[in-house]
Amino acid sequence: MATSLLSRQLVLSLQQNLRLTAPGCRYVSKAAAKTQMEFEYDGPSMKTEVPGPRSKELTKQLGEIQNVGAINFFCNYEESRGNYLVDVDGNRMLDVYTQISSIPIGYNHPSLIKVMSNPNNMSAFVNRPALGIMPPENFPEKLAESLLSVAPSGMSRVQTMACGSCSNENAYKAMFIWYRNKERGHNIPSDEDVSSCMINQSPGCPDFSILSFMGGFHGRTMGCLATTHSKAIHKLDVPSFDWPIAPFPKLKYPLEEFTRENAQEEARCLEEVEDLIVQWRQKGRPVAGIVIEPIQAEGGDNHATPDFFKKLRNIAHKHGSAFHVDEVQTGGGATGKFWAHEHWGMDDPADIVSFSKKMLTGGFYHKDELQADKAYRIFNTWMGDPSKNLFLAEVLNVIRRENLLEEVTRSGKTLLQGLYQLQDQYPNLLSSARGQGTFCAIDIRDDATRNSILLKARDKGVLLGGCGDRSIRFRPALVFKEYHVHMFLNVFSDVLAEHN
Amino acid sequence: MATSLLSRQLVLSLQQNLRLTAPGCRYVSKAAAKTQMEFEYDGPSMKTEVPGPRSKELTKQLGEIQNVGAINFFCNYEESRGNYLVDVDGNRMLDVYTQISSIPIGYNHPSLIKVMSNPNNMSAFVNRPALGIMPPENFPEKLAESLLSVAPSGMSRVQTMACGSCSNENAYKAMFIWYRNKERGHNIPSDEDVSSCMINQSPGCPDFSILSFMGGFHGRTMGCLATTHSKAIHKLDVPSFDWPIAPFPKLKYPLEEFTRENAQEEARCLEEVEDLIVQWRQKGRPVAGIVIEPIQAEGGDNHATPDFFKKLRNIAHKHGSAFHVDEVQTGGGATGKFWAHEHWGMDDPADIVSFSKKMLTGGFYHKDELQADKAYRIFNTWMGDPSKNLFLAEVLNVIRRENLLEEVTRSGKTLLQGLYQLQDQYPNLLSSARGQGTFCAIDIRDDATRNSILLKARDKGVLLGGCGDRSIRFRPALVFKEYHVHMFLNVFSDVLAEHN
Repeated sequence: MATSLLSRQLVLSLQQNLRLTAPGCRYVSKAAAKTQMEFEYDGPSMKTEVPGPRSKELTKQLGEIQNVGAINFFCNYEESRGNYLVDVDGNRMLDVYTQISSIPIGYNHPSLIKVMSNPNNMSAFVNRPALGIMPPENFPEKLAESLLSVAPSGMSRVQTMACGSCSNENAYKAMFIWYRNKERGHNIPSDEDVSSCMINQSPGCPDFSILSFMGGFHGRTMGCLATTHSKAIHKLDVPSFDWPIAPFPKLKYPLEEFTRENAQEEARCLEEVEDLIVQWRQKGRPVAGIVIEPIQAEGGDNHATPDFFKKLRNIAHKHGSAFHVDEVQTGGGATGKFWAHEHWGMDDPADIVSFSKKMLTGGFYHKDELQADKAYRIFNTWMGDPSKNLFLAEVLNVIRRENLLEEVTRSGKTLLQGLYQLQDQYPNLLSSARGQGTFCAIDIRDDATRNSILLKARDKGVLLGGCGDRSIRFRPALVFKEYHVHMFLNVFSDVLAEHN
Repeated sequence: MATSLLSRQLVLSLQQNLRLTAPGCRYVSKAAAKTQMEFEYDGPSMKTEVPGPRSKELTKQLGEIQNVGAINFFCNYEESRGNYLVDVDGNRMLDVYTQISSIPIGYNHPSLIKVMSNPNNMSAFVNRPALGIMPPENFPEKLAESLLSVAPSGMSRVQTMACGSCSNENAYKAMFIWYRNKERGHNIPSDEDVSSCMINQSPGCPDFSILSFMGGFHGRTMGCLATTHSKAIHKLDVPSFDWPIAPFPKLKYPLEEFTRENAQEEARCLEEVEDLIVQWRQKGRPVAGIVIEPIQAEGGDNHATPDFFKKLRNIAHKHGSAFHVDEVQTGGGATGKFWAHEHWGMDDPADIVSFSKKMLTGGFYHKDELQADKAYRIFNTWMGDPSKNLFLAEVLNVIRRENLLEEVTRSGKTLLQGLYQLQDQYPNLLSSARGQGTFCAIDIRDDATRNSILLKARDKGVLLGGCGDRSIRFRPALVFKEYHVHMFLNVFSDVLAEHN
């Protein structure tokens, strides 16, 4: 196994080098490629099954402190490099899951190490400020060079938060505040608003709702959880809100081969959205906002077409609801564009775009009118973490310097082509290969086979994640090159052969 | 002003040094005190009014990106040291607010700088893992030497989270899950549970409630917000849950002078708690948990007696509700004990204790039975941040090495005595001085005077925060020594004289 991987790796490296020296080749600088090559390991290397004995021992230790039901294994992050995650038993795996899609440019990237070793940055780590009241001097500048430099179309305002859930919770609050002020016609609450809100009652705490989609995932705090509908285990036993839930289109893949059926399915869902908005208004729980992922990730990598999103955005407009695009998992470049919603080609794609994970800091962009009208309405102690903004600024530099969005597009094409080929080869095992950039997925015959494939691939040195009922999601870092794709396909192919 | 402060400082330093050399004096090591003395500035130094011109300019810049209504001024964290916060206009202020009570051992503490410059720690900053699935090798060890080394009585399990709100949200979920399994008599959900929870409906999303207290603050995400009742601006326009809200005792201070009236008031509130539990059970929204702060902080530094908390804890027991003590603001040593609830002297003070702020990481401790029964129920991508655990471990070392809890107790006594004296001196201006350790507060005649005092003190180099309707809260770092107290009282006294 290791031998075949290595030889494949050598061939690919050679191809890569040839391409790089070809005249007119501009998509990745020679220097950058060299750094990447030297810096990274040359393939997986497995010493034990995973989890190995040391991981098992540590899991037992941690079990005395926490529920460890979800622990896969323990990692040696010091030894991990680029696309390779090393575990505590010395196993080195090609990481196509990247800490639930949250490592943007691989492990221990030299540029991030530099951020850490720059003495000017020390204070941002050691003194975490209350950003909402006493930000550091360079805060506006760092926001400008990091988050604002990649702001979605039509948005020049951004609020940082500590994590994805807090980002969505606060985005929902911003939509409620905006909607209520619109309803009032001004922003001065009545005495009744003020007194009733203190005891959780309407009109101060109005019966507004957020419309979400079946299969969507927006986080696990109680506001977010009311819009999350991917798996029962997330929601079970937690009180919730009576908010409308629309069907997300169940499309056939490849999308371009089933345009007519898919368009019908999308039309059905859009009709349902409008019906629900009307119903909930009649119920006295008007829809203040609609929240949706550009690709439903946790829920099974469910795609919809740009046409669907354009029409949905229009429906939001028509009914006076804010339109919130949750890019927590899709944002940061993995689809080949910085934001997945850019694939829709719209000038005015959303009122709010939330992010976290690969962005290293949570937060949300919003249109001017969605800004809270008064201080302390969208607020908490930390409101993010300036040390994460420093890392993000550097990640964005690396993405630009190394043309990583183009790399992702190229790697993604190779990945999807490979998945199509495997799907043709194993029609009883695989179906519905789909993706944008390297943000790809494929369905497996059934849940049990999916899980078995995940474990087998891991023992062969490729780390993958599941999503939905029976899908595998591919979530490599942005530095996942074509030769990594081939390395992955090689292992995946071996594993599939064992399951056929 | 500066002269009087400086001379006072000199006298105090001298006293401090004399005390340190006295035989048998063990509460602070000579070396530690020396570090502190050399490291820190010797007093406030003001160059401009606050905010100064540079802060105003930056506020304008940030205003293009965010709502800046809550911005006080911009800081130069590089130049800040110990108890002194330096702003971008070169003003150096004695910080008695510490980023909303979240800086444990002052700015740029040399021990924390060391954590940063240790190359072994690099990877914890650069590679943020998904702790719930792939923790770093040293994670159990770091938890043991940091959070578990200060675990509340009866608790050996802890879950880290990114911030205070996420900590409370997840603590609430843990209580709901625990309560529902208790109700079921087992932990196997029915098919109806599973299907109904996916659409936010009971029985899968049961109509459980959390009982909270008027004046309480537990965060601003939607679950937390349903239990926050300190100020209308936090809650206005955000949908909420119909959950019971009990009165928090309104006591007279000093507590020991009004024992009988205070006991009556506490009895009244406890009776109301029991009534509400019964009422909400009858409504079909049983109280799964009770959440309370040991001192209501944001709501106005409202205290209750150990007797009240003991009885409340018994009521929770009696009615089968979990008892959640929110130590986000009170925890970490400022009351002179590591946890404020330790002042109650109970072996079994709570089922859940949540924390954040001075602990640098969010999270919650819980009793064994409150652990979620299955994986992925209390879960999110990051589940905290190991780099914060590194800092916390070092903060705890410093607290122990420098006996900071004893320091806090001593400084706190001096602070409270000073406040009592000022209150006697200005009976029309001040009332209800109160506190534990340096976690003190005092009431001002009215809101406008309070705010004016805060601004005047700031322009004289002392940074304070408000809470409640008309209180000032004192939230210095744990390295706030007696001479800092005198320095503060000196300035405060001048400011009060101007307001009398």
